Amino acid sequence: MDLDTRNTLYDQAKKWIMEAGAIIKDQIGAPLEITTKSNPNDLVTTMDKNTEYFFVNRIKREFPNHLIISEEGYGDDLKDLEGTVWIIDPIDGTMNFVHQKRNFAISVGIYHDGIGEIGFIYDVMDDTLYSAKRGGGAYKNDFRLPTLPADRKITESIIGMNHYWLCENRLVDETVMQHFIRTIRGTRLYGSAALELAYVAEGIIDGYITMSLAPWDIAAGLIILDEAGGISTNAWGADINLLSTNSIVACNPSIQSQIIDDHLQKGRK
Amino acid sequence: MDLDTRNTLYDQAKKWIMEAGAIIKDQIGAPLEITTKSNPNDLVTTMDKNTEYFFVNRIKREFPNHLIISEEGYGDDLKDLEGTVWIIDPIDGTMNFVHQKRNFAISVGIYHDGIGEIGFIYDVMDDTLYSAKRGGGAYKNDFRLPTLPADRKITESIIGMNHYWLCENRLVDETVMQHFIRTIRGTRLYGSAALELAYVAEGIIDGYITMSLAPWDIAAGLIILDEAGGISTNAWGADINLLSTNSIVACNPSIQSQIIDDHLQKGRK
Repeated sequence: MDLDTRNTLYDQAKKWIMEAGAIIKDQIGAPLEITTKSNPNDLVTTMDKNTEYFFVNRIKREFPNHLIISEEGYGDDLKDLEGTVWIIDPIDGTMNFVHQKRNFAISVGIYHDGIGEIGFIYDVMDDTLYSAKRGGGAYKNDFRLPTLPADRKITESIIGMNHYWLCENRLVDETVMQHFIRTIRGTRLYGSAALELAYVAEGIIDGYITMSLAPWDIAAGLIILDEAGGISTNAWGADINLLSTNSIVACNPSIQSQIIDDHLQKGRK
Repeated sequence: MDLDTRNTLYDQAKKWIMEAGAIIKDQIGAPLEITTKSNPNDLVTTMDKNTEYFFVNRIKREFPNHLIISEEGYGDDLKDLEGTVWIIDPIDGTMNFVHQKRNFAISVGIYHDGIGEIGFIYDVMDDTLYSAKRGGGAYKNDFRLPTLPADRKITESIIGMNHYWLCENRLVDETVMQHFIRTIRGTRLYGSAALELAYVAEGIIDGYITMSLAPWDIAAGLIILDEAGGISTNAWGADINLLSTNSIVACNPSIQSQIIDDHLQKGRK
């Protein structure tokens, strides 16, 4: 993707994100129609669907050749990442949205032929926009995020992770994860994968680990983190595939091998 | 404590808290002198000590008969809670303070003959003040927090808890805690006990559980939560003792017995 195209797309996507955010802020006081998908942890709100439709409608009109991967079903069914692909989570952190009415984000990543070009994570209620263009650095609003420090120690690290991975599960040995928790300085869990990735990019947590996420949870975050000097693979050190679910280790590069080689690999199921 | 005294104390404490917060905000960009206490998880900063001294100095001058329990050593060594006792954590969430430069709070609880009269939890960087006067309700800034909903279900609850309690430890059976995690809807961890208690009072999380906290971590939060209709005991359902460390279950009353009787009690060591 050439620079002009990237800049044009960035400006257009940013405009839509701010518009969608304004609509959400305007409507968040109204009662929600909440239905459950597969389980009670997976809340879907009317606003989630409406916000996705907002984006899909505009993208298909303005950029008819672009493709879309998104959570609620208005996107395309893709077999590869050829061309320009928008990967959208209209409301990441749905449980926070419903229960807290804050701490959720609009996440939009734009890829071209599989390469991350543009990422946005918009914390709607806090009015904070994390963004990146490939080669242009990562930003928190108008502030350019500094490159992550190269000397972070694993024993001084704060890691975002769901408590669930310390319980018996089908993906990773929980005793290995428990040992990992005792190795690091501290843990956090904010309830939005997109925001946790933004926080890794910002350096306020040093890593984010999960065993299963959809492409739309991470597509924007991977680009923003990369531009801040962070690194992302699946939990076993392999490349992330944006056409399927993935495990994720997104972190400061100085602690990646300790997380993966010294801990997670030993618990791989 | 009579109403006039309570109001006077409230106004004075609030004024000092806002002053102390302004100093912290002013200085937070400067390099910190960090020393370690007993372990690397327990960071103490110059600003922590300075802020405590700020309060102790003013309280002793303005209210020479009042007593103080606080973290950094400028307070009194109390054998009981007779008289008026300020219980202060100058910076709750020290790890957040150092690592994030946000998500920490000044926590001030004022007790009279053991009864909670006034509580303040000030999220300094977010400029959000949670407060309560006994019998006067709980507030987030100028907004009175509604009484917590009486119909919260345990399976729909979000609980704040450190990941550590899902690992082998000397206080609670980790397998019982792991089973508990699978029972509830979700977990969070923000890294400041004071703020987590304020969030329970606000209803954005439904409970906060920990196996060991100092009085200054919780003194203000207990009062604010009580005024929002929440309930607090130790992890086994007994009263909290503000002269010692405690385990804590602070929650929406509608889920208390499920948390304690159905889960924690079974893991008591």
